[in-house]
Amino acid sequence: MNTTGILEKLHRIDTERLHLEKAVAVLQWDQETYLPEMGVEGRSEQLALLESIAHERLTSPEAGRLLSELGSTTEDPRGDEKLPPLERDFLKTFRRKYDRAVKLPVEFVSEAARDEGLSQAAWVRARRASDFSAFLPHLVKMIDYSRQKALYWGYKDNPYDGLLDIYEPDMGEEAVSAVFTPLGERLKDMIRKITSQPRPDNSFLDAEFDIETQANFNRDLLKRLGFDTGRGRMDISAHPFTTTLGPDDIRITTRYLPRQVQSGIFSTIHESGHAFYEMDFPEEIRGSCLADGASMGIHESQSRLWENVIGRSRFFWEAMFPALRSCFPGALSLVSVDDFYRAINLVEPSLIRIEADELSYSLHIILRFELERELFSGNLDPAELPAAWRKKMKDLLGVEPETDSQGVLQDVHWSMGAFGYFPSYALGNLYGLQFWEKLKSDIPDAEEKIAEGNFAPVRDWLRDTVYVWGRRLEPPALLKTLTGKGLSAEPFLAYIESKYAGIYGI
Amino acid sequence: MNTTGILEKLHRIDTERLHLEKAVAVLQWDQETYLPEMGVEGRSEQLALLESIAHERLTSPEAGRLLSELGSTTEDPRGDEKLPPLERDFLKTFRRKYDRAVKLPVEFVSEAARDEGLSQAAWVRARRASDFSAFLPHLVKMIDYSRQKALYWGYKDNPYDGLLDIYEPDMGEEAVSAVFTPLGERLKDMIRKITSQPRPDNSFLDAEFDIETQANFNRDLLKRLGFDTGRGRMDISAHPFTTTLGPDDIRITTRYLPRQVQSGIFSTIHESGHAFYEMDFPEEIRGSCLADGASMGIHESQSRLWENVIGRSRFFWEAMFPALRSCFPGALSLVSVDDFYRAINLVEPSLIRIEADELSYSLHIILRFELERELFSGNLDPAELPAAWRKKMKDLLGVEPETDSQGVLQDVHWSMGAFGYFPSYALGNLYGLQFWEKLKSDIPDAEEKIAEGNFAPVRDWLRDTVYVWGRRLEPPALLKTLTGKGLSAEPFLAYIESKYAGIYGI
Repeated sequence: MNTTGILEKLHRIDTERLHLEKAVAVLQWDQETYLPEMGVEGRSEQLALLESIAHERLTSPEAGRLLSELGSTTEDPRGDEKLPPLERDFLKTFRRKYDRAVKLPVEFVSEAARDEGLSQAAWVRARRASDFSAFLPHLVKMIDYSRQKALYWGYKDNPYDGLLDIYEPDMGEEAVSAVFTPLGERLKDMIRKITSQPRPDNSFLDAEFDIETQANFNRDLLKRLGFDTGRGRMDISAHPFTTTLGPDDIRITTRYLPRQVQSGIFSTIHESGHAFYEMDFPEEIRGSCLADGASMGIHESQSRLWENVIGRSRFFWEAMFPALRSCFPGALSLVSVDDFYRAINLVEPSLIRIEADELSYSLHIILRFELERELFSGNLDPAELPAAWRKKMKDLLGVEPETDSQGVLQDVHWSMGAFGYFPSYALGNLYGLQFWEKLKSDIPDAEEKIAEGNFAPVRDWLRDTVYVWGRRLEPPALLKTLTGKGLSAEPFLAYIESKYAGIYGI
Repeated sequence: MNTTGILEKLHRIDTERLHLEKAVAVLQWDQETYLPEMGVEGRSEQLALLESIAHERLTSPEAGRLLSELGSTTEDPRGDEKLPPLERDFLKTFRRKYDRAVKLPVEFVSEAARDEGLSQAAWVRARRASDFSAFLPHLVKMIDYSRQKALYWGYKDNPYDGLLDIYEPDMGEEAVSAVFTPLGERLKDMIRKITSQPRPDNSFLDAEFDIETQANFNRDLLKRLGFDTGRGRMDISAHPFTTTLGPDDIRITTRYLPRQVQSGIFSTIHESGHAFYEMDFPEEIRGSCLADGASMGIHESQSRLWENVIGRSRFFWEAMFPALRSCFPGALSLVSVDDFYRAINLVEPSLIRIEADELSYSLHIILRFELERELFSGNLDPAELPAAWRKKMKDLLGVEPETDSQGVLQDVHWSMGAFGYFPSYALGNLYGLQFWEKLKSDIPDAEEKIAEGNFAPVRDWLRDTVYVWGRRLEPPALLKTLTGKGLSAEPFLAYIESKYAGIYGI
């Protein structure tokens, strides 16, 4: 067969793999949004079967043969040098998926998938009842699966490196630690300074905000941001998320709390940031493994850029506050946009990650990173997690949860075995500000445009400079191409310093 | 291997087939309820792939070998006489599925599935625009696929027999015709008599019924009927349907029209009838191919029994009318339960099947049966369908649609290639009354119980006498076991005569 024919065959395998993964995503989305309570067990069986079939397709001997025929090896994954650059990037990305999958036995994948479904359901119940002990056996299983996975991949010395690598290629525990340790110190310092200042008033946010009105405002916000509801939708789930169910079917979820109107709004904006990335990959990579985020950290850079740098800015609320105030005249009629801006940027270490301010947020992540590291080094017994969690919260944030629902049970990630994922959030903060610095030098009036309610220049820039690459460039190459530099916390820290100096007058 | 081992292996294949079918059902449910408009194409690709995989599993050489080893053949599907009766029924049912599937090439199944998705989406658009010509090429394809399918199954003389057989085993065109022709004549006669009487007033139904209040009433109704929302749910779709996504995940949809409160109510009750069947199969057949309706006609006997015999009865509204009136005091405060009962049983031939009264309903079905028969005999060109439809409506019902949306485009079935399905609805009316006659002789105060809002005796009886069999008995055997008789239109006609004599005083 000629090269074109071989490539076509490999692309067909990739397409089928993708269709199966998307079918899995539909079943999972449904599980988080609409599945009746008793349906969980049946759904777990279905997911286990579909995931094992997806795994079989990806790891078929044919895929391995086609990769070899195109000159792609584990060491030199991009294949024959004469192939077009796009195809070589495809081979590199497909080979990475193939190599990871082929090392996992199909029964292992299927069992893990089944148990993940049960574990998530158990977590939902345990969180509701604040009963860590009911979740513990599932957690132990999830840790075991993850450790075994890393071992299958060859991470014998440090399985946690193998888990981090899933989300952030080639960034192991040491590299993350090297960034997180000084970042944590700087943030703790700044929080100390800020919290010694008079506390801005945010008491007006502690009012009753009608859920249906919140839903209307958020739907309108979505429209103003430019979210195409012909190619996506927004639903409600316990833990907001974004999922891609097809190239023209990108869904986000949010959640509304009756007394914290900002919670739903920032979930909506955060998930929209993920969705824009998924919606705007270029035509040439649609429907292939290249139509994906460069890494989880880069994906989070988009959601956190939209949520914080844009969504918690003075210029954003210049555009959006009048609409919010007219939705909630009772609570907000006497509130100015400046009052609101200060209130949503109140720095105050607290218990829940997804409700955290921009400074404590990364400390929440550092806490999870340090606990994961100890779980996988064997220094921490999972049964001791609640106590370890409380101790670290005290050290890093100076607060302590009274219940496990507000502590170790707050996040969905561990219940689905997604260890190594959390660091992406904090890395996303750093990447995001590196991109934003460049964006502002390219579009000096970006903030003024947003203040006028015009999000198009920012969306277009992100599409043309970040999304256009899909997974073709890995994070370091993407950063280099866009900013000429490597990963750095400086733009993030400079942004934080200047923003909060303004708010707190320090 | 011993018999137990062989059976276990076959059951495992059946379970996997079922999981895949249920995954398909999730994707289809989502397509009808929540899928963003542009997502249809991607969804079609996913469905095509999943259906072809389900087909491959079912038709694996291993399944054929295991069936033979158990002594099951096409001619004698129940296998070795020494096997337990439950296993012999399983073999019969599985063999039927296997035989049907193994004759269809996998590419055919996959192509048909993909085109079905596109055809349904085209139908939605065509119906909205009342543009039959936009739908015609899809319809032609769907007819071709169905004809080819019947040919693969060996129905050379009359492909339509093969299609009818999908939904009603061993009941070909002639048998259906033998029941439908006299039924049609009797119904036309009765309609003539009834419509020569003074027309009961139903003008109070032509009011504005707030959609959100309708939704609340219907959710409450569902609860009162005993629908377990821990094992199912109700959503909205253009065309109401029931689907089973797992043994503990049975979903119905309904739809609300602003000016016809009864439309949503009867959709809800109809689909609940289907759902009760699917929810209450006995433990011993759960999760196997035996956990299914005996036939589509028997399935419809349940939905139409609940919708009409119960839902349109005086005793039902004795229990439910106070709640409905208190939801809509503006429209209904001056309406008595008798007025309401007469209004919802108004006999008046009209254009839309799913809004039809109990008498015209079967004539709508006879119309579709006669058109399908002509399409598959080659006597009717699909392009001529709108005209043929209008002519037959005039003949059978005395009315004629002005637009194709109200005519040939009104039903979803043909867009998904479900030719041969319609007769089940009218057969369901007949089966349903045969069951009801028996139920009333077993529970003489069934109607009084319902009038008190107590649906449990009826639900329990149906569970213990009909649902308990799942697919173990075919319709004739089920009828025989329950009523000691064969299929007969007499109980249905006697019910109609007595009910409408009461309402119209004739």
